[in-house]
Order: sequence, then C-alpha cells, then structure tokens
Amino acid sequence: MARTLFHTSLIYRTTTEHKRDVAEFCGNVELCRLTEQVVFSDPYKLSQYNRWTSPYLDQDAEAIRDDNTLKLEVAGLKSMFCERAQALIHGDLHTGSVMVTQDSTQVIDPEFAFYGPMGFDIGAFIGNLILAFYAQDGHANQANSRKKYKEWILKTIEETWVLFYKKFTALWDEHKNGHGEAYLPEIYNNPELQLLVQKKFMTDLLHDTLGFGAAKMIRRIVGVAHVEDFESIADAAKRAKCERQALEMAKLLVKERRKFQSISEVVMAIVMRNF
Amino acid sequence: MARTLFHTSLIYRTTTEHKRDVAEFCGNVELCRLTEQVVFSDPYKLSQYNRWTSPYLDQDAEAIRDDNTLKLEVAGLKSMFCERAQALIHGDLHTGSVMVTQDSTQVIDPEFAFYGPMGFDIGAFIGNLILAFYAQDGHANQANSRKKYKEWILKTIEETWVLFYKKFTALWDEHKNGHGEAYLPEIYNNPELQLLVQKKFMTDLLHDTLGFGAAKMIRRIVGVAHVEDFESIADAAKRAKCERQALEMAKLLVKERRKFQSISEVVMAIVMRNF
Repeated sequence: MARTLFHTSLIYRTTTEHKRDVAEFCGNVELCRLTEQVVFSDPYKLSQYNRWTSPYLDQDAEAIRDDNTLKLEVAGLKSMFCERAQALIHGDLHTGSVMVTQDSTQVIDPEFAFYGPMGFDIGAFIGNLILAFYAQDGHANQANSRKKYKEWILKTIEETWVLFYKKFTALWDEHKNGHGEAYLPEIYNNPELQLLVQKKFMTDLLHDTLGFGAAKMIRRIVGVAHVEDFESIADAAKRAKCERQALEMAKLLVKERRKFQSISEVVMAIVMRNF
Repeated sequence: MARTLFHTSLIYRTTTEHKRDVAEFCGNVELCRLTEQVVFSDPYKLSQYNRWTSPYLDQDAEAIRDDNTLKLEVAGLKSMFCERAQALIHGDLHTGSVMVTQDSTQVIDPEFAFYGPMGFDIGAFIGNLILAFYAQDGHANQANSRKKYKEWILKTIEETWVLFYKKFTALWDEHKNGHGEAYLPEIYNNPELQLLVQKKFMTDLLHDTLGFGAAKMIRRIVGVAHVEDFESIADAAKRAKCERQALEMAKLLVKERRKFQSISEVVMAIVMRNF
C-alpha cells in the first residue's frame, strides 16, 4: 500500500506523469460507479439491494437513512471519491482481497483500480478489521474465549496504520530531493517545515482513512454485500448485537473522525464501544 | 461562472459524463503546469522570474519565502489544484480576461481550462478586485479622492460572491431531481438536509475561493506577472505601501480563510487592513 500509493502520488511524480495516468484510468468508470452506488448511496436510501439482520436492525437501518449529519459527511466522502485523483488506488482492498502465507502477501482483484483518494484503500482494510473485531463476541463459545484473538485484531489495526505511516514517510524522506511536484525541495526542504508538512498530510490521510473505512463498514451491515465474520454467526439476535456495535462505531468514525489524532485513540474508542 | 461551474459539476452530471470530460482535459497539462509554477511555487522560492518593488518589499518577499505556515497552506491549495476535478474551470479568470460593455459580458482566453477546483476561478476574479482596492490609495491625488471608487470595488466583491451564491444554488434547486450524482434526490431531498448540504458546500467553496484568490494576489506582488493597478503607481515608495497592505491581507486570507463565514466578514477585514 505504501509503495503503490506513494509512487503514484504527486509527492513522487510530476503532474505530467500524473495527468497522463489519471486520464487512462478515467476509462474505468463502470466499476467506480458500482462502488459509488453500493458504498455511498444504497445504504442511505430504500433500495431493493439492501439487507440487514431483520427485524433486529430494522430501526438501526432506518436511523441510518434518517441521519442528516451522517449523510452530509457521506456526501463529502463520495465527492472526494469521485473528484480527487490523489494516487492509483486498488479500489476494493477489503481483507478478502489479500492472500497471505507465512512467506508471502498477494493482493488480488485489481479491476476497481483508478486514481482516487488514498484513504479509500487504507480505510477498506482497516474497516474490515474493525468489523472482524466486533464479530468475535458472536463466535465466542464462552465469555472472553476470543479475548486473545480480539487483542490480535486491535494490534493489527494499530500496526497497519503505524507501519504504513513509517514506510510512506520513509519513501517520502528518501525521495524528498526528487522530481515530485507536490512539495518542491527548494520550497519545502527545511527540517521544521518538512515535519509540519508530513504531519499535516498524514493526519488528513488518517481522517480520510477513518471516513472511508467507516462508510465501508456501514455498507457491510445494511447494504447489499456483507462479511463472513458476521454472516457466520448463526444466532440472529447475537449477530445483530455485534453488528449494532460495529454500526455505532462506524457512525461515530464518519462524524467525528477529525477529532482523532492517532490510531491508538481510534483503537481505544473501538474497545470502549465493545460491551 | 455559476452556470459553467454548476453544469460541469457532479451536482448536475453523472460520473460517466464527468470522467469522460476529465480525461479529455487531462491533455491540457502544459498550461496547468505553468499555473502550478507561477502561482504555487515561484513566489515561495528564489526564482529568476520573481520581481517586486525593490528595495521596499525585499523583506516582505523574504518573509513570504520563510513563512512555514503560509507554505503549508499553499501546498494544500496546490494539491487541490492538481488533484481535484470538481468542475470545468476557466483557469485564468482574472479581471483582465473579462470584457464588458453596458450590454454584454464576454470572457476571453480559455486556453487554461481544465477540470479543477471551482474556487480557483471565483478566487482569481475576487483576488484581482482586492488588489484593485488596495491600489487606489496609490492613485489618489488627494486623501480620500478615490473613496467612492473604493466603495464600488468593495460592493463588487460582495456582489460577485452573493450573486454567484444565489445563481448557483438556484440552479441546484432547479435540478435537485435531476440525474446529478453528488446528491441523489432519494437521499438528499428533504428540506432540512438540502439546506445543510448547500450551506456546507457553499461555505467550503468560499474558503477555497479565498485561499486561491489570496494565492493569486501574492503572486501578483512578488511573482513574475504583476497587475496594472499597482504597476501604474509611478512613485515606488507609495506603490510598495499599497502592495504591502494587499500582501498582508492575502497572507491572512490564506492562513485564516476557514474562519470567514460570509463575504461581508471578508470585506470588513479588507477595510480594516487599509490605512
């Protein structure tokens, strides 16, 4: 993620290279439209494609459709998705697109790729991990039997962002005298400013990540396509309880994402809303 | 401005139409690069192309190059200019591109046009008016002899935004049940939410307008191309005094633009910094 997003962004590239590739990926309009619909539209209106754990979540789904503050924020995220050519993103980077063994990590299904906001990829991955966290209580055969696994998921959420941060800013430092056009060395290469610029960029990116990640969490609970983490909880009442916690966390993240200054604050908030 | 920006935005159009046109205008890379250089880069570094009223503004020009907060904000504006395909913008809409008679208004020089942030056009025009305002004291042959004209300029600044606001939101209201994809009618057509959405959109747009407008003011004082309003002040000391006021106002607008909630607050701030 760090390598692809960095090397296709204007931190690394010239605007000539950037505009050429943006134009090329504008052709991938149909799959972008599918994402626009299932992530940013369907969950917020009555749609034949939506489903949820009924009747338990009927009121929760209705509350989503009636939440003006949430819908205002989602409109902003949708516009960013449609307008902002920040880097070449995978476009569907949920955990199911990542294949791992002890020795290797491979990402599949690149057909949604286009120039969009970086936070959409990072958020997709982290959003799925948060869903997995809230699903565990539905699978525990006795209280706390999934405690270790839940801790591992939280650690993975934190490490995903921390490692991305480290690798992305390391690439930035390495290429700070390169031909990237967003921050020209003659203007931005003084140590104090470099730090300010990176901190602002990465904080904005964390907020985008949380917004997009949370929007994708919402659509996995009240939209067309769900996640196996919840689907495999046979007891519907139990499943709904888990899903409701995830949904509440997602709404908070969309609305209040700009208040989080670090990923550990996010992890803390996730734990505090699990009971 | 209202008509062109509205009809080429996702408030009015589908993402299919939008992406097709974005791709087409990605070809206009060289003129975009020229803007990137002269507006967002040159004024913030030592460049053979920069000039200013020397020696009077030598320290002011140096202060611009050393202002980390300013440069951080300008980096954000530059990224928005390069990444955000919000609407088809003119790209060089300073007052010199607008030809008027009593009966007709024509805009010339469309060669910079591309899909970019709307605020860049509105800002270019308003920024030029602010420069014109601060230039008047350099042309007054006695104290206050330009008072009426200055008042007219301020009124024009205010009316430009107010009229744009009215026409743009009127078009929005007229087409709110259309096929525009940013705010689908099934989700956003309740009166309270419609109001919230428009208010947020227009406030964000005012902030973009002020940021881009101010960035263009700065480049007209310490960058390569200047404005006749100042250039025609023969007395260099007098000219520098006017330019310094405009420069200080521009720096304030770039850094503090998000604090302004209306154009009348901006006009008030302009007057308060004229002495």
